[in-house]
Amino acid sequence: MIDSKLNALLERFVRQDRLALARLITLVENRSAEVSAVMERIYSRTGRATILGVTGAPGAGKSTLVNRLVAKYRAQNKMVAVLAIDPSSPFSGGAVLGDRVRMTDHYRDPGVYIRSLSTRGHHGGLSRAAREIVKLLDAYGHDVIIIETVGVGQTELSVMDLADTTIVVTVPEGGDGVQVMKAGLNEIADVFVVNKADRDGADRIKMELELNVHLRPSDGRWRPLVVMTQAANDVGIDALMAAIARHDEYLRAHHDAARDRERRMREFVEVLTSELEERAERGLRDGAPGAAKIAEQIRDGAINPYSASRRIIEDRSALGELLGAGRAEGE
Amino acid sequence: MIDSKLNALLERFVRQDRLALARLITLVENRSAEVSAVMERIYSRTGRATILGVTGAPGAGKSTLVNRLVAKYRAQNKMVAVLAIDPSSPFSGGAVLGDRVRMTDHYRDPGVYIRSLSTRGHHGGLSRAAREIVKLLDAYGHDVIIIETVGVGQTELSVMDLADTTIVVTVPEGGDGVQVMKAGLNEIADVFVVNKADRDGADRIKMELELNVHLRPSDGRWRPLVVMTQAANDVGIDALMAAIARHDEYLRAHHDAARDRERRMREFVEVLTSELEERAERGLRDGAPGAAKIAEQIRDGAINPYSASRRIIEDRSALGELLGAGRAEGE
Repeated sequence: MIDSKLNALLERFVRQDRLALARLITLVENRSAEVSAVMERIYSRTGRATILGVTGAPGAGKSTLVNRLVAKYRAQNKMVAVLAIDPSSPFSGGAVLGDRVRMTDHYRDPGVYIRSLSTRGHHGGLSRAAREIVKLLDAYGHDVIIIETVGVGQTELSVMDLADTTIVVTVPEGGDGVQVMKAGLNEIADVFVVNKADRDGADRIKMELELNVHLRPSDGRWRPLVVMTQAANDVGIDALMAAIARHDEYLRAHHDAARDRERRMREFVEVLTSELEERAERGLRDGAPGAAKIAEQIRDGAINPYSASRRIIEDRSALGELLGAGRAEGE
Repeated sequence: MIDSKLNALLERFVRQDRLALARLITLVENRSAEVSAVMERIYSRTGRATILGVTGAPGAGKSTLVNRLVAKYRAQNKMVAVLAIDPSSPFSGGAVLGDRVRMTDHYRDPGVYIRSLSTRGHHGGLSRAAREIVKLLDAYGHDVIIIETVGVGQTELSVMDLADTTIVVTVPEGGDGVQVMKAGLNEIADVFVVNKADRDGADRIKMELELNVHLRPSDGRWRPLVVMTQAANDVGIDALMAAIARHDEYLRAHHDAARDRERRMREFVEVLTSELEERAERGLRDGAPGAAKIAEQIRDGAINPYSASRRIIEDRSALGELLGAGRAEGE
């Protein structure tokens, strides 16, 4: 994309043009070369949104719950975005849930933005894409961003890192509490929800979760709250909102500068390393002069990948060419 | 590790010292700075082993089946290695299965090497670690390497890329055939195994799988074979060995040079990009001079990670310093 076109897109984005937002999110999904430039330009607008993560086993009623939360925030006149991380077969293509029916309540509301991100084809880069989309949603002016993951794999858990408050949804079903502990969800939960709380066993799972919380050392850290809901009947949502608000107050009161510094450094390492990776891939694909000869030797099997990699990295000018390091000045 | 120590270790490895092999695998698992040097040195010894992948849903009897295969290959006097990819909570630590009981049959046999690799803590680098461990097992002199994955997540599927022949294990249980299709396993299978074939429904799932295979376009590509086994009773293992051998013959007869070139390039891109990533992380951690000042600005929030990343990459000498690109000459 030429610069003037990108500029026009960013201007529309700043004026809260939803199509421009959608277009920029698509750039991130497709890992376009412009992503870093976009992020650099919008970064100063980020940091205002409250970011919620909602996770738990499939069938726990997360979508219904998210739907209810959206309605509550809309009643407060807040702009809300939902980013649904959808699992999908790495081969067959297509998100399992796709653009689902569930959100029809809010479909025509301009204060609600809904987007699915498929876990497919990100090669471990899903958390980068999710983080950048959340930044876009934040910079756009959303007050609340809800990240919903389906499934509890490592990928999904890493995405929960982005949330200020992580909500783990369970249901009163055979050993769901134990499953939560096993999957490590209890270690990331700020709020536990026992959904479908009208079913048998709801009290038991609530007690299990509370026991687990109270067995933790009381070292001044946040102790997760446990909330009972029946999302389908719109019951308990106010209590959940209150729990989220309490965690938010806790975060403000216990603002930890050292953790902020650490978090910023972690984000930088992730941005830098994936930038290096993407530039190297592009450089090799586009036949960067410094790497073209060695690439041919690799294809022929004349040099092993480890020797080739060391040679390129140790040759500053080949490396600079491959990564487009010099382009900024001359072009 | 100093060079002379690494040399001694590699010499012991070449003399088939199992402790040296274990030590080198641990280096890979810990992402030591020496890994690339090790791989560079052993690379020419690789490419001789037959690599089998065994995957399928938990409870399908994969471990028992692998155990039987090991016994068959040992009867042929082949050296066999098993690499078990174990899922584990990203938080609680520890592989779910660990060094399990199942392999006790072969535990004291010096011709069998068994190792677990936990999926934990690899941040998407699991497939690199698995690939490098397979290279070590290959270079060591194993004739057959069996990679067994538990679970069918994206991580596990990416590891199956390493196998010459991928075996997908199913059982006659409610909709297991459908699950296989859904998970995309049918697209990676070279051989299907219907294990526990004495159970009801075994014939039906066999027919389903065969129908699926026969509906594919007959474009000269390999058509997966379907084999019935009862691993627990040692039934059907010879038929499975025959199917593996047939696929091996097919691969030899249809050797595809273009695919080889593509595969080599893919491996190189993976090695190069993760090398860049690991060097950048080390450089930042160790306070490489060119990056130290910018790292401080990032921690303070004085510069956003995207601008910082661009600045470092566009400054060839800062980049070179960060990646240790110059070290090879001077030190």
